[in-house]
Amino acid sequence: MSELTHFNEQGRAKMVDVSEKYDTVRTARAKTSILLNEAIYHQIKDGSNKKGDVFAVAQVAGIMSAKNTAQIIPMCHPLALSGVDIEFEWNVNKEASHYEVILYAVVKTKGPTGVEMEALTAASAAALTIYDMCKASGKEMVIGPTMLLEKTGGKSGDYIRS
Amino acid sequence: MSELTHFNEQGRAKMVDVSEKYDTVRTARAKTSILLNEAIYHQIKDGSNKKGDVFAVAQVAGIMSAKNTAQIIPMCHPLALSGVDIEFEWNVNKEASHYEVILYAVVKTKGPTGVEMEALTAASAAALTIYDMCKASGKEMVIGPTMLLEKTGGKSGDYIRS
Amino acid sequence: MSELTHFNEQGRAKMVDVSEKYDTVRTARAKTSILLNEAIYHQIKDGSNKKGDVFAVAQVAGIMSAKNTAQIIPMCHPLALSGVDIEFEWNVNKEASHYEVILYAVVKTKGPTGVEMEALTAASAAALTIYDMCKASGKEMVIGPTMLLEKTGGKSGDYIRS
Amino acid sequence: MSELTHFNEQGRAKMVDVSEKYDTVRTARAKTSILLNEAIYHQIKDGSNKKGDVFAVAQVAGIMSAKNTAQIIPMCHPLALSGVDIEFEWNVNKEASHYEVILYAVVKTKGPTGVEMEALTAASAAALTIYDMCKASGKEMVIGPTMLLEKTGGKSGDYIRS
Amino acid sequence: MSELTHFNEQGRAKMVDVSEKYDTVRTARAKTSILLNEAIYHQIKDGSNKKGDVFAVAQVAGIMSAKNTAQIIPMCHPLALSGVDIEFEWNVNKEASHYEVILYAVVKTKGPTGVEMEALTAASAAALTIYDMCKASGKEMVIGPTMLLEKTGGKSGDYIRS
Amino acid sequence: MSELTHFNEQGRAKMVDVSEKYDTVRTARAKTSILLNEAIYHQIKDGSNKKGDVFAVAQVAGIMSAKNTAQIIPMCHPLALSGVDIEFEWNVNKEASHYEVILYAVVKTKGPTGVEMEALTAASAAALTIYDMCKASGKEMVIGPTMLLEKTGGKSGDYIRS
Repeated sequence: MSELTHFNEQGRAKMVDVSEKYDTVRTARAKTSILLNEAIYHQIKDGSNKKGDVFAVAQVAGIMSAKNTAQIIPMCHPLALSGVDIEFEWNVNKEASHYEVILYAVVKTKGPTGVEMEALTAASAAALTIYDMCKASGKEMVIGPTMLLEKTGGKSGDYIRS
Repeated sequence: MSELTHFNEQGRAKMVDVSEKYDTVRTARAKTSILLNEAIYHQIKDGSNKKGDVFAVAQVAGIMSAKNTAQIIPMCHPLALSGVDIEFEWNVNKEASHYEVILYAVVKTKGPTGVEMEALTAASAAALTIYDMCKASGKEMVIGPTMLLEKTGGKSGDYIRS
Repeated sequence: MSELTHFNEQGRAKMVDVSEKYDTVRTARAKTSILLNEAIYHQIKDGSNKKGDVFAVAQVAGIMSAKNTAQIIPMCHPLALSGVDIEFEWNVNKEASHYEVILYAVVKTKGPTGVEMEALTAASAAALTIYDMCKASGKEMVIGPTMLLEKTGGKSGDYIRS
Repeated sequence: MSELTHFNEQGRAKMVDVSEKYDTVRTARAKTSILLNEAIYHQIKDGSNKKGDVFAVAQVAGIMSAKNTAQIIPMCHPLALSGVDIEFEWNVNKEASHYEVILYAVVKTKGPTGVEMEALTAASAAALTIYDMCKASGKEMVIGPTMLLEKTGGKSGDYIRS
Repeated sequence: MSELTHFNEQGRAKMVDVSEKYDTVRTARAKTSILLNEAIYHQIKDGSNKKGDVFAVAQVAGIMSAKNTAQIIPMCHPLALSGVDIEFEWNVNKEASHYEVILYAVVKTKGPTGVEMEALTAASAAALTIYDMCKASGKEMVIGPTMLLEKTGGKSGDYIRS
Repeated sequence: MSELTHFNEQGRAKMVDVSEKYDTVRTARAKTSILLNEAIYHQIKDGSNKKGDVFAVAQVAGIMSAKNTAQIIPMCHPLALSGVDIEFEWNVNKEASHYEVILYAVVKTKGPTGVEMEALTAASAAALTIYDMCKASGKEMVIGPTMLLEKTGGKSGDYIRS
């Protein structure tokens, strides 16, 4: 006798159906950071890193990763992004030997799903790129915490991190 | 004298123009299968495969391939999929030493072209992933036949395999 | 009190370590097929398919998929392929209205793992491309069975399908 | 004291926001060329190139690159293309030993941004593929000049190269 | 008069030459974490997340991202990885309402450059995938800090985070 | 009776076998150019382009495309590049209203095949990126001629463009 059993319904991965959702303008803003040492701080400031202009390359990495998010995150819906912006901010306290870059990624689209993952992925890829370009001068760099700051658009409404 | 000759019109590959087509909800459901031996059957059932949970990985492979279909199939139009689901079913007859997994892929979109190729590609990639994860225990596995079971939406109307 | 539990060892997916394996020349040959109707047969033969030369596009699809196999199959090791070849053969019996294309994919590399998956993926992608280019003239096409015919090289030795 | 400085506003790369733009039908037509020697000319004409049918492979390369443009060009918006066509034309003057292929790429979409980059990228990739397939018979081939011939659709209106 | 100026040497991005480096076995181990709420904790434990088995999908995402690192990080050298493993550990303190997943990524290769970036990217992608699958139940999740724990192999010697 | 016919041997595309070739250090240097108008010249020089630092983004595009060459050019063998460098040079004659950027791409690897295609593809992608970032200020830009300047390594010996 032939035995027919369905694979467990529970826990089965799928890309959930969003065809009923409407296309609306959606934005998301994510934040991460990277803590680095004084030598790396000067390298980035002076443009003396041997791999190139660190922030310029990190921005391109962030923007391209935003566009590739649905290839990196398996259950994430593909979306045609309408805009991506990556910003850097130095948070430095020389007395305390604190050298940190804060990274913001802002992503916008007109589509059926939100762009939280695109913003978080872009921020992460930009930070990882800083790590890569500077790691010859110190592997102790720490990335994150990484988090969503806000999102707008979509049925679930706006979200602002409290 | 200069000679100007067009490359043969006949047989010239192109991605045909679909800009006149309307965006409608479209679904497709494809099926394939993989025939395997008893040892592999137990490995999958017991979760003792050394590469991991076979069906869990195959589902992710199928879903990601559905999203990548237009990169794999040259003349296929890119589409923002709204949903993908992969299902497995055991078809086992121990007396006859018949161990087979039936795979279904269901794909949905709202767009100008159908998602038959996405469903067929997802099913194929999921079956190939099962092959990959289990091939150390027997390379004689057979994939398919692979076929379209049904599609809905679009000007050409619905199709159900008879 | 803080609770520290490891995720289940059993069933955990991983790309298994092959750094101990030696680089040797490895080949694999896979086979699939696609059954199609008479109209499609003539279209391919006459070069009258509106999307282009069906076999020429399918060959490119197969070769590019062989190179992309480690992106399509999650636990598959990346390999720099040294050669890929796709062959087509008509198996036609007009009296029986049997029109079938047999596809072979041969892949070669010098590396630490075999190329069975590359050959199987290339054959599958080539067959899917035929389906895509011809589906306007009949969605009832059937792909496969798909199987490995032989492999050479590597510690596990050669394999020839019996 | 902590120092907070924004990375230079000037020169910061971003994918500019197009969420306010309307979806309209847009087309673009680009042109490039490749100058080659007599031996290569005969190889392509006779189909005796050992890597295959040069124009057939180049067309597939062009079409797939059109679909991948937003992955190749960092600040380019992703677009779901509705059609792509690549044409070849021989410009030959045997007396002057002038052997040249003219390539045209025509791309169409319904979306918020134009497809100039897709057409230019498709033409470039097709020409590079001809170079690749023929370089064993002469590395002195010259690609281009590459240029946009015309575009239609979008707020900035139509453009025809004068 | 024609003016010939080189673009600024300083700050010019490049993928630095490693052709003088030897192929040796190299490993790296990176760590990240994700802080989540009680509902998500139960969802993952019970397998009741509507998108599927969270850890299973996150592992596949991590492994595939390790293989794609040179596509995500612009100045990173491509490497044929020989092994990738992703591990999860629950760090839970119910009294303190602390629910956290610790993620480890271990990557191995035999090549001319280290795999620190592959390990960091794999860990980040796995954590981002957990975020994606659980965000419907709480967008306040925090990823990281993300850091390198150790590396072995290569001329610069081993590194262990102190 | 069943009819078995091989698809035409002649003209069949394949990725030719290079498993007999030795790994040697190989380099290639390619050149292209882009002719642009005075407004764009000032925009790039002043860093006032609204999409960002044009040369910085173009360099990243060139480097990433070098790594992706085997995905863009169908019959091209995959190679693990060991170094990529993109250089820009202004060729300006204000009296003649001549504003031109010369682009050089230098690629290096240790492998069985040359890197001519990687250098040509990198130069082309960098030039296309300049076009993309500046096209709002003039679509009449002309890319190329694009050509190989020199290559070293491999059995066929060195090549220097005469």
